[in-house]
Amino acid sequence: MSRFKTVAIVGVGLIGGSIGLAVRDRKLAAAVVGIGRTAPKLKKAKDLGAITETSLTIEEGAEKADIVIVCTPVSDIAGHILQAAAAAPSTALLTDAGSTKRKIIADVEAAIGADKHFVGSHPLAGSEKTGAEHARADLFNGRVVVVTPTRRTSNGDMQAVADFWSGLGASVLIMTPDAHDRALASTSHLPHLVASAVAAKTAQVDLPVTAGGWRDVTRIAAGDPELWTQILLENREHVLKSLAGFEKTVAAFRTALERGDKRRLNQLLTEGKQVRDAVGN
Amino acid sequence: MSRFKTVAIVGVGLIGGSIGLAVRDRKLAAAVVGIGRTAPKLKKAKDLGAITETSLTIEEGAEKADIVIVCTPVSDIAGHILQAAAAAPSTALLTDAGSTKRKIIADVEAAIGADKHFVGSHPLAGSEKTGAEHARADLFNGRVVVVTPTRRTSNGDMQAVADFWSGLGASVLIMTPDAHDRALASTSHLPHLVASAVAAKTAQVDLPVTAGGWRDVTRIAAGDPELWTQILLENREHVLKSLAGFEKTVAAFRTALERGDKRRLNQLLTEGKQVRDAVGN
Repeated sequence: MSRFKTVAIVGVGLIGGSIGLAVRDRKLAAAVVGIGRTAPKLKKAKDLGAITETSLTIEEGAEKADIVIVCTPVSDIAGHILQAAAAAPSTALLTDAGSTKRKIIADVEAAIGADKHFVGSHPLAGSEKTGAEHARADLFNGRVVVVTPTRRTSNGDMQAVADFWSGLGASVLIMTPDAHDRALASTSHLPHLVASAVAAKTAQVDLPVTAGGWRDVTRIAAGDPELWTQILLENREHVLKSLAGFEKTVAAFRTALERGDKRRLNQLLTEGKQVRDAVGN
Repeated sequence: MSRFKTVAIVGVGLIGGSIGLAVRDRKLAAAVVGIGRTAPKLKKAKDLGAITETSLTIEEGAEKADIVIVCTPVSDIAGHILQAAAAAPSTALLTDAGSTKRKIIADVEAAIGADKHFVGSHPLAGSEKTGAEHARADLFNGRVVVVTPTRRTSNGDMQAVADFWSGLGASVLIMTPDAHDRALASTSHLPHLVASAVAAKTAQVDLPVTAGGWRDVTRIAAGDPELWTQILLENREHVLKSLAGFEKTVAAFRTALERGDKRRLNQLLTEGKQVRDAVGN
């Protein structure tokens, strides 16, 4: 028997589409409703097998949902959660897949009814690729999903959302929204900014001598600028702090280079290697 | 019939080992002599099939070589080329695989006899992995090798070195040593420094929330600190210029973030995306 009768997914791109594929692959729900603004995109997701039904409005699409996962750009998430909360049965579980958490959750909690069941989530499974055509049923397999309860969250709701992601093969980490945003500023948002700056500073004429290293460092710079503008701005305090630390380390490299300080350069590079080696491939 | 009777490789790590495997795989030489300081490392390379003979000295190992490729750390290359030039037949072709070119080539040309045949090379096929155990016969397949002649280089020698790399499946680009170093500062040395700084700034406690983006950006930070200290110092003027441009772009990001300037952030991210998209996977 399926765990859910109806799963509703708002936004069926890479993440939303992969949730649909994973839910269907693992037979966790009888119906998966894809909700989006444009019929062709929904049709594509349905053709790919990511969803079983489509809806152009949250009002209609969330009506029978046992769980709604909002996978739209971060600026839209709070509004979509509130719409889903109004449309779905009062027992429905509500979560999202946004890359930032503090502002989204504050905005939702400021307006949502006390009887609703919202808990924020962030699956660490994004990519520079977007769209349901890149969706995969195993996208969450072995990946981390951060679930971010607040003082208002019941243990039951937190557990239910955690179980949902575990059911898709993910490992769940519980963090506060602010701890999430602080950590992700350093592990995701700063790296994105830096990758973009390295790419932007590479002259056209030098592109033929880019190799694997450059391609790795800059890969995520291919991400959607609009989505990433939103992410960086929503988390700007933490990103600015992380950036200040990074600029200091870069300045230390510069000073060591200017001075020809072999020992210091080696020390700085060794610090980077130690952290990188701790993570592995 | 093989193109060479004897190929000698000084330093049989990832690059040297892969040259040996590629030469043997393509039957370009009757004998491949691996030259190194430690017998066990040479034995491993021989067991892997990368070389057919071993020698603990350049004097002995280069004695019969038609071509010598020096694949040691950049600080050692000029000295090893000069040793090889003294040991090898006067007709032997001499080249290297160093990540920097200007200083190595100046040092070699200041001391080498006018009758010798040295042309610098840089195969863009490095990796954070090191050692002959990661060597692959197809490492140079479809990769770029930069060959860096000077005013002293004869066209015949340049062509012969270019043909050697083409013979291993690489595309050859001809650049001056200084143009190479200027370009690589921006496409390889700066990215390495930046990857290292991002890794070093990531706190231990945040490592569980690193995902694909972080892993891509920081991958090359796992490279050997000693090798990269040498590379950054040998090319420090160009790296410092490239770094100054990068710091300016990062500061532009910071200002846009501080001001909450959505339009400017989007513009900066779009510049990075355009360059990245031009390169592809």
